[in-house]
Amino acid sequence: MNTFGNTFRFTSFGESHGVAMGGVIDGCPAGLVIDYALIDRDLARRRGADGTLTTARCEADKIEWLSGIKDGIALGTPISFIIRNGDVHSEDYDALSDCYRAGHADYTYQKRYGIRDHRGGGRASGRETVARVVAGAIAKMVLAQHSVSVSATAQTLPPSEMEEEETYGGRVECVVTGLPAGVGNPIFGRLNAMLAYAMMSIPSAIGFEMGIGSKAMAMTGREYADAWHFDDAGNAVKEQITETNHCGGVQGGISNGMPVVFSVMFHPVVTQMGENCCLGADGKARDVVIGGRHDRCHVMRLPVVVEAMAALVVADLLCGRPTVCFEEEK
Amino acid sequence: MNTFGNTFRFTSFGESHGVAMGGVIDGCPAGLVIDYALIDRDLARRRGADGTLTTARCEADKIEWLSGIKDGIALGTPISFIIRNGDVHSEDYDALSDCYRAGHADYTYQKRYGIRDHRGGGRASGRETVARVVAGAIAKMVLAQHSVSVSATAQTLPPSEMEEEETYGGRVECVVTGLPAGVGNPIFGRLNAMLAYAMMSIPSAIGFEMGIGSKAMAMTGREYADAWHFDDAGNAVKEQITETNHCGGVQGGISNGMPVVFSVMFHPVVTQMGENCCLGADGKARDVVIGGRHDRCHVMRLPVVVEAMAALVVADLLCGRPTVCFEEEK
Amino acid sequence: MNTFGNTFRFTSFGESHGVAMGGVIDGCPAGLVIDYALIDRDLARRRGADGTLTTARCEADKIEWLSGIKDGIALGTPISFIIRNGDVHSEDYDALSDCYRAGHADYTYQKRYGIRDHRGGGRASGRETVARVVAGAIAKMVLAQHSVSVSATAQTLPPSEMEEEETYGGRVECVVTGLPAGVGNPIFGRLNAMLAYAMMSIPSAIGFEMGIGSKAMAMTGREYADAWHFDDAGNAVKEQITETNHCGGVQGGISNGMPVVFSVMFHPVVTQMGENCCLGADGKARDVVIGGRHDRCHVMRLPVVVEAMAALVVADLLCGRPTVCFEEEK
Amino acid sequence: MNTFGNTFRFTSFGESHGVAMGGVIDGCPAGLVIDYALIDRDLARRRGADGTLTTARCEADKIEWLSGIKDGIALGTPISFIIRNGDVHSEDYDALSDCYRAGHADYTYQKRYGIRDHRGGGRASGRETVARVVAGAIAKMVLAQHSVSVSATAQTLPPSEMEEEETYGGRVECVVTGLPAGVGNPIFGRLNAMLAYAMMSIPSAIGFEMGIGSKAMAMTGREYADAWHFDDAGNAVKEQITETNHCGGVQGGISNGMPVVFSVMFHPVVTQMGENCCLGADGKARDVVIGGRHDRCHVMRLPVVVEAMAALVVADLLCGRPTVCFEEEK
Repeated sequence: MNTFGNTFRFTSFGESHGVAMGGVIDGCPAGLVIDYALIDRDLARRRGADGTLTTARCEADKIEWLSGIKDGIALGTPISFIIRNGDVHSEDYDALSDCYRAGHADYTYQKRYGIRDHRGGGRASGRETVARVVAGAIAKMVLAQHSVSVSATAQTLPPSEMEEEETYGGRVECVVTGLPAGVGNPIFGRLNAMLAYAMMSIPSAIGFEMGIGSKAMAMTGREYADAWHFDDAGNAVKEQITETNHCGGVQGGISNGMPVVFSVMFHPVVTQMGENCCLGADGKARDVVIGGRHDRCHVMRLPVVVEAMAALVVADLLCGRPTVCFEEEK
Repeated sequence: MNTFGNTFRFTSFGESHGVAMGGVIDGCPAGLVIDYALIDRDLARRRGADGTLTTARCEADKIEWLSGIKDGIALGTPISFIIRNGDVHSEDYDALSDCYRAGHADYTYQKRYGIRDHRGGGRASGRETVARVVAGAIAKMVLAQHSVSVSATAQTLPPSEMEEEETYGGRVECVVTGLPAGVGNPIFGRLNAMLAYAMMSIPSAIGFEMGIGSKAMAMTGREYADAWHFDDAGNAVKEQITETNHCGGVQGGISNGMPVVFSVMFHPVVTQMGENCCLGADGKARDVVIGGRHDRCHVMRLPVVVEAMAALVVADLLCGRPTVCFEEEK
Repeated sequence: MNTFGNTFRFTSFGESHGVAMGGVIDGCPAGLVIDYALIDRDLARRRGADGTLTTARCEADKIEWLSGIKDGIALGTPISFIIRNGDVHSEDYDALSDCYRAGHADYTYQKRYGIRDHRGGGRASGRETVARVVAGAIAKMVLAQHSVSVSATAQTLPPSEMEEEETYGGRVECVVTGLPAGVGNPIFGRLNAMLAYAMMSIPSAIGFEMGIGSKAMAMTGREYADAWHFDDAGNAVKEQITETNHCGGVQGGISNGMPVVFSVMFHPVVTQMGENCCLGADGKARDVVIGGRHDRCHVMRLPVVVEAMAALVVADLLCGRPTVCFEEEK
Repeated sequence: MNTFGNTFRFTSFGESHGVAMGGVIDGCPAGLVIDYALIDRDLARRRGADGTLTTARCEADKIEWLSGIKDGIALGTPISFIIRNGDVHSEDYDALSDCYRAGHADYTYQKRYGIRDHRGGGRASGRETVARVVAGAIAKMVLAQHSVSVSATAQTLPPSEMEEEETYGGRVECVVTGLPAGVGNPIFGRLNAMLAYAMMSIPSAIGFEMGIGSKAMAMTGREYADAWHFDDAGNAVKEQITETNHCGGVQGGISNGMPVVFSVMFHPVVTQMGENCCLGADGKARDVVIGGRHDRCHVMRLPVVVEAMAALVVADLLCGRPTVCFEEEK
C-alpha cells in the first residue's frame, strides 16, 4: 500500500538511491491554481533551514511535473511529478547488502519481500517524505479554498549529559484551523483516527495524542468535559463554540468547529554501530562500520511532514464530503 | 465509513435504541470453525465482569446468526449477525431531541448529517462496540490458525479527592504474540499505523503509543536502539530476535517477530450536566437533567474492545498477505 | 467481495436456504425519505407479476428494517435490512451435497471455497437478487432527488420448436433519463464500464452493449458519429444535445446529457438433468434427479434487477461527485 | 479514478500532448524478473506492425524506469515508469481550444472538469493506452509464474461501398488459458464482471460478450448447458472439464478451469468534420477543419490493449487470492 486517501489520493514511489522519488495525486479538484512558491518553501523547510542538526545530504529537490497541470492550473486528471535522486553515496552502504542494522527496517523489509534495495535505506529512507511534502503542499492549496490551514511546530530537548554525536527525538504539535463543524465520520473513518493513521505513517513516529492527550487520564469526566461557550445573554459563541478544547476539536470522530489539535511523538534516529551492531543474512553477529549520513535531531525537519500528512487527511475529507445534508442546504 | 479492513472486512451497523446492532464480516476464510464459547466470553467481558463500575444497562447480547455459517463452519460467504437492543429507556433521552450535550457527539452528528437519533447516543453510543467484539472474536479465530494471539489489560487510577459519582479514564495495554516477522506494509498500511487507526476508532480514545511510546523522547538513538539478540556463539536467537523491544515489535511498518506491544489512552466518560450543560438547537444555553446510564470507569470494559480491533487489524493483514516472496517459498 | 460501490455502498449477504437474505447500505444521504411502497412494488416485480413463466417458489419478501432509518427518514448511518427465507424445500437438494450440476456454480464454488451450502444454490442462488432490489429501490430514491430515473424492459423470444418444459433467455434494455452531462470518470471508473460491471454481476448475464452496440461495427466513423443537434439558428438544443444517440449517452466514460441507454443479454436457466448430468466429488459421472424449482423464462423477472444495479451505479456516482468544478459553480 | 485493481494495482497518468504518459504498479510480487523484451514487443504491437491502417503518429515509446526495479528484479515496492511524448503537433488542435468535436469526449470532459487539455485529446487520447500496455506486460509476467497466458486477435470487416478515407470498427476476441478453477468471486468481483469492466474501459469499446455471448439467447437451457466431460469409464477429464464452453470458462463469477473466452466490440473512430461538426463553447454551431491524425481501423492495434487489461484483471485476482481454503491445502 503506497496510496493514501480515498477521494484526494496520493500515491508515493521511489527508492532513496534509485532514479527518482515521486508521486501521483488523483482526485485533485480541477481548476486549482498551483502555488509553486509554497511547494518550494515546504521543500526547503523539509531540507532543514539550519543544517547544524540535519543530515549532510543536500538535494536540490528540483521537481519535474509530468502531468495533470496546464498553464499552472490543475486539469482534474492525475498530477504526477518526480524529484531525481542526486548526491548519493551508494558505496557507503555496500556493507549492508547482506546484513541488517539494529533498529532499522532492513530486517523487516527482507522478511516482507525477500529482497530489498539496501542503498541508503531504499524505500524505507526518510528521503521518501519529499514526495509527501509536495503532495501535502498541493493538499494545502485545496484546504485554502475552504479557508482551512495547517501549522505544526517541533519541541525537542537534548537528553542531559549526552555525548557529542548522539541523536535524540522529540514532539511535533499541529493545529488545523478553519475547519467547519461536521467534517469526519463516526465509527470508522474518524477524523482523529485518520490523523493517527497518517501520523504513525511518518518514519520514527512512536506516539499520537489528540488535544490534551494523556493528561485526560488524570481528570474526572466533569473536569475533562469541554463546556459550551455562551455569552452573557446565553447565546452560543459561534467563533469559539466550547470554553476549553481538551478533546482537540473532534467529538465522535467529527470536527466540532474548534481548532483541531494533536501532537506526534518521535523516537531518535537509531545510530547503534560497531560491535554486534548488525545481523548477517547468515544469522550471525557482524560488526559493521556504517557510513551514510544522519540527522542529530531529525524532528526539526518533521513539522512540514506532519503538516503534509494532516493536509492530505483533511483534503481527502473535504473533497469526499457526502452530498450536503438537507439542513445545510437551507 | 462503517467498514473496517480490506481483505478481512467488518461492516458495523445499528443505533443504540434502534432494532438491533449488528455486523457483516466479508472475507472470512472458508472452513474456519466458529468458537461460539469464545464469542460469549468476550461479550461477557465487554458487559463487565463486575458491575460496580459499569453501566446499569444490562443486555443479554444474544446473537442471531443470519448467514455465512453452516453447521458451525464458515462458508467463505459474508457472515452476518445481529444483537437486538432490549432494555432501552428511550424516554430518558427525550430532552435531548433538540439540544446537544457538552462533550458528546450530539452536536457534531447534527452538523454532519443534519439529523440524528438522539436516543441513547444513537449511532455514537458505546453500545456499537458490541458488534466489534463479535467480529473481533471471529478475527481471533483466524489469528489462532496462525498461532497468533492478542491480550489486553486495563490500568486505571481514580483521581485523588474525587467526589462519589465522578467518572475517570485510564490506559489499556495490548500485546500481540506469535506474529511472524514480515507482516505489515512500508510507507502506508503500516502495522503500527493501522493499529493506531483502529484504536483511535474506539470511543473516548485520546492517545496511542507503540512500545515504550513517549519515553523514547528522553533517550538517545544509541539508548533507544533495540540491539540484536545473539547467544555466546554470536548466533541470532530466533525466539527473541532483539534484546529489548522499545519499538514494540514493528520496524518500518513491518513486524520483526517480537511481540507487538502498544497502549491506548482513554479520557473519562463525560458527565457534565445541570447549568448550561446543553446547547439548544436554537443556539441558546439550556439546562437539562440528563437521565441515561454511564460507567464510572468504562475503561474496565475496554480491553476486550482493544483486543477486537487489534485482531481485526492483524486478521486483515494475514488474510491479505501478498503472494509469498520467493525466498520464503524456498 | 460482496460490496458494491464506493460512496453509496451496498453490501449483500445471505444464502438461499439460510436464515435470511439481507443487505447494508452505507453512504445513503441523511434526510432521504424512504418510499416503502416503491420497495414493495419492485419486490413484486421481481417475484413476477404473472407466475406462468416463473418459479413456483413464492416468498412473502417481508422486510425487517434493522438500522439507519428513524420515522421513515434515513439517518445517514448504515441502513440494514433482512428478508427471512421461508418456503424452502432443502430436502430437494440433498442429492447435491457431494456432487456438482452441469452449468451451475456448484463446482466453481467448491473450488473457490472448499466448502459450500448446496441447498437451493446457496449463495449463488438468484434469490440473492432480492437484497439488490431493495438496495436499488433506495438508490432510485436518491436518483429521484436529482430528477434521474431508470427504466428497463425485457425482450424474450421462445426458440422455435421447443419442448414444453424448456427454458430460454433474452435481453433486457435499460434507459437512464435525466442524468446531467459530466457524470462518470475518464480512463477507469467510466460510467459505461461501471454499468457493464454491474450488469455482468447479475446471474446468467452473458453480454452487455452500450447504445447501438454491435451494430456500430457495421458503420463507418462518419455514420456512427452522433452529430450535434442545432436549431435553424445554429444554436445547440440543450434538451437533446445530439441528433442521434448511437453511443448511448456516454462519451469518454462521462455522460453527455442524453439518455443513457444499454442492454444486457441473458442465457437461459440451465436445466440439464438425468444421464451424466452431475459430476461427483469423487470425480465420477453421476445421474441425479434434481428437484428444486426453476423459471422457464427468468428474464421476465430481471428488468427490476437491471434497474436496481443501474440505480446503484448512478447513485454511487451522484453521491461521490468531486467538488464541483469552478465553471459549474458559476 | 485512474487506478485499476485492488491487490495488483495500476495507476495511469499523462496527457497526450503533456510531458509524458506513465504509470505506477503497486503490489507487484517481489522477486519478479522483468522481461523487457516482452514489454517492447507489446509496445510494438500497439504501435501497429503495419502502418497502413494506423495513425501517422509514431512514438519511440522509450520507457524510463523510475523505481521498484533493481538489477532487473521487482523489489515489491511501487514500479513506476514514464514514456515521454515526442512528435506532437499541438498546433493542429488550436481550433479546438474553445469548441467540442462531435462524437468525442471534448464536451463531456469540459462538463466534468470545467477545464481540459484540448491538445490531441488530452487525457482522453488513445495515447493513454501505452501505459496500460506496459503495465499489462508486467501483469503477464505475473501470470506466467502461474502458467497462465492471454492471447487476443482482431476481426475487422470494412463496410461495403466505403469511401476511401472512411474509418471502421471491429471485434477483438481474447482467450485466457491455464487459469485454474476457483479464481474469481461470487456476487460482486466476478471474473466475468471484472473483465467486462476492464474491457469497457478501453476507448471506443461498445460491447462485451462472455463465451458464445448473444448466441445464447437463441438456445434452450438444455442446449446451452455445458455438459461435464467424462471418459468412457465415466471419469471426469480434468484437462477439459466440460464438453462445450458456451459460458466462456466462468460460472457463478468463478473460473471453472476451462479457457476463459470473451470478446469486445469496438465502434469506429469518429471522423465527422466540416459543416456543423463542432459545438462552440458559446453554444453555437461551428465548422472546423480538424487536423490531427487518426487510424482508419484502430482495432488492428487493440488486441494487445485487450490482453493488457485482461492480464491486469487476472493478476489482480491471482495476487489477491484469499488464504487457500482447507480442501486445497490437502
